[in-house]
Amino acid sequence: MSQLPAALGDVKALTFDVFGTVVDWRSSVIREGEALGARLGLDVDWAAFADAWRGGYAPAMDRVRQGELPWTRLDDLHRMTLDRLLGDLSIDEAFTEKDKTHLNGVWHRLTPWPDSVAGLTRLRQHFVLATLSNGNMSLLVNMAKHASLPWDCVLSAELAGHYKRDAEVYRMAARLLDQPPERILMVAAHQDDLQAAHREGYRTAFVRRPLEHGPDPTPNHYVDPCFDLVADDFHDLADQLSC
Amino acid sequence: MSQLPAALGDVKALTFDVFGTVVDWRSSVIREGEALGARLGLDVDWAAFADAWRGGYAPAMDRVRQGELPWTRLDDLHRMTLDRLLGDLSIDEAFTEKDKTHLNGVWHRLTPWPDSVAGLTRLRQHFVLATLSNGNMSLLVNMAKHASLPWDCVLSAELAGHYKRDAEVYRMAARLLDQPPERILMVAAHQDDLQAAHREGYRTAFVRRPLEHGPDPTPNHYVDPCFDLVADDFHDLADQLSC
Repeated sequence: MSQLPAALGDVKALTFDVFGTVVDWRSSVIREGEALGARLGLDVDWAAFADAWRGGYAPAMDRVRQGELPWTRLDDLHRMTLDRLLGDLSIDEAFTEKDKTHLNGVWHRLTPWPDSVAGLTRLRQHFVLATLSNGNMSLLVNMAKHASLPWDCVLSAELAGHYKRDAEVYRMAARLLDQPPERILMVAAHQDDLQAAHREGYRTAFVRRPLEHGPDPTPNHYVDPCFDLVADDFHDLADQLSC
Repeated sequence: MSQLPAALGDVKALTFDVFGTVVDWRSSVIREGEALGARLGLDVDWAAFADAWRGGYAPAMDRVRQGELPWTRLDDLHRMTLDRLLGDLSIDEAFTEKDKTHLNGVWHRLTPWPDSVAGLTRLRQHFVLATLSNGNMSLLVNMAKHASLPWDCVLSAELAGHYKRDAEVYRMAARLLDQPPERILMVAAHQDDLQAAHREGYRTAFVRRPLEHGPDPTPNHYVDPCFDLVADDFHDLADQLSC
């Protein structure tokens, strides 16, 4: 057990990014895609498909952020990107509407990283645990039920009508948790999410998830020194927080 | 096990009123009041105090509903009523600010009815379970942690900026759960809450909590025939829902 850093002594709640930080979206999408592709007799590179689908995420949110689209839930942004990808690959006609709806729901059925449930269970003994994700509420609730994620509270960008990294999302969470931001620790595998939380006064913990983008990612060794903690997984985070 | 009523075959989520339906607010307030009164050497009828405090709830919400107050969280409405009661009883000066803050927090520490946790645990195997309470989010999150209430999702009037029985609250829950209202079963011990949910298209389950207002309430045997289910407690509810 490490000594708890002094700046974290007053932390009451932990807010978690989810996609990539808590769950392994890439492997889950590949696995379901391969099963569906086999059933439909399709020859698709599902790893490339997963990367392209996830790659549509930031541009789609930017369309909402810039007012080109009204507020649109992540489920619907995922579906827009899915439809485009199936068209681009000229495999659209192999899918019934039911197949598409089911495949789009894969984001509700993502598998946690091996340490996630056990680590969260330790952390929950000491802190309020909330999601703070761009996933819509029903997506996050279904995912938690499917993967046994022990949240005290599901919070979503949907409640703010803004996507991270807009400041409104972090302010909404502090208001609903009834805590000043310096008593909340944002936990994420993405530095821009933590930097935005830091700007709002949150404490921040960077968790390394080197396999998020697959076994051969471009390594990035730079870690912003503004973060309060850097952890290798949720057990390491629980150790550092004396849980 | 009863046969599941046909109208309930498509229900996916259960939304719960909390105060009185899931937790026994009256006994909890009396118990904490008596302990605090003994420590401060006060002679107070804590049962009457609990009833008067709770009695301030509807009028305070009506002030918000009618625009006399801006949106105000239940914690703050509770505190306004508490301050008035302590003044009316001329015991205000016996309390430090810390005592008042702690006493006001009793609503975060309410004790569940004996069947609540076990009944919810059975129901959760089959349905998404969400609160739908006038309590603010942080109150409900703290209560769930204190009392081990196994919610999948905490939803509050605070998210709608309206108090039950305003229609906006039920619409907010259906939107966030991404279900049409006829797939949601509102569970409450208060018929006006269920009637308002029914008007929005929800299914409804009335749970009898004859001890909510103490051992000597005025009995009310009338039950609105519009409700889909009537249950004696959460085990009976789980039986009737084939859980």
